[in-house]
Amino acid sequence: MKANAYSADCPTRQILDRVGDKWAVLILLLLRHEPLRFNQLRRDIEGISQKMLPQVLKSLERDGLVKRHAIATVPVTVEYSITPLGKTLATAVDPLRDWAERNLKDVLAAQRRYDAQRHAKAA
Amino acid sequence: MKANAYSADCPTRQILDRVGDKWAVLILLLLRHEPLRFNQLRRDIEGISQKMLPQVLKSLERDGLVKRHAIATVPVTVEYSITPLGKTLATAVDPLRDWAERNLKDVLAAQRRYDAQRHAKAA
Repeated sequence: MKANAYSADCPTRQILDRVGDKWAVLILLLLRHEPLRFNQLRRDIEGISQKMLPQVLKSLERDGLVKRHAIATVPVTVEYSITPLGKTLATAVDPLRDWAERNLKDVLAAQRRYDAQRHAKAA
Repeated sequence: MKANAYSADCPTRQILDRVGDKWAVLILLLLRHEPLRFNQLRRDIEGISQKMLPQVLKSLERDGLVKRHAIATVPVTVEYSITPLGKTLATAVDPLRDWAERNLKDVLAAQRRYDAQRHAKAA
């Protein structure tokens, strides 16, 4: 089967879901610099819940993008690192992050124009 | 304020949400080739609901990524086209789509290994 993200059954669509998870992307970009512990990740990513973070980490581990290391301290310390596969994904995300930072102003301006127009029509 | 996607208040995070919407990405990549009508989009994107499609199109229009044209036929025909800003975003998405298609097999293999391990532990 040829990869076709427009087909509901195609696994590329699944990957698009992962890539399209903003938390997953933020975690990958952080782990690219250095391995981090669970609590460090939670502090670094504002707004992620204590429930959501382990779920996203588990998906990333299952996809082979992140590796989980349990260190035999008391209590056990768990550290996460990015895999070589995860690094290639982080690199593919770079142009997208650059786009967002470069075009932020234009998107916000478009939103204001759109809302003003709708407001004018409603009045 | 410097753009910082890790801060909950930063609008870059909002853009990451849009970019992270798999439907939005699929629509943009389709419209890059040619303007399309609502019903064509619905046929081309398997699995998107009749309720979801107008919501995603409205967000894309509000963000200045897509333009809506009402054509005065009976009944009115509505066509969507990609804007120059939308085109730059579609281009930034390309490396990601390429990554997904190129690494599909590796991700699926990692998932199988992970599931087999968990199964072995549970048994």
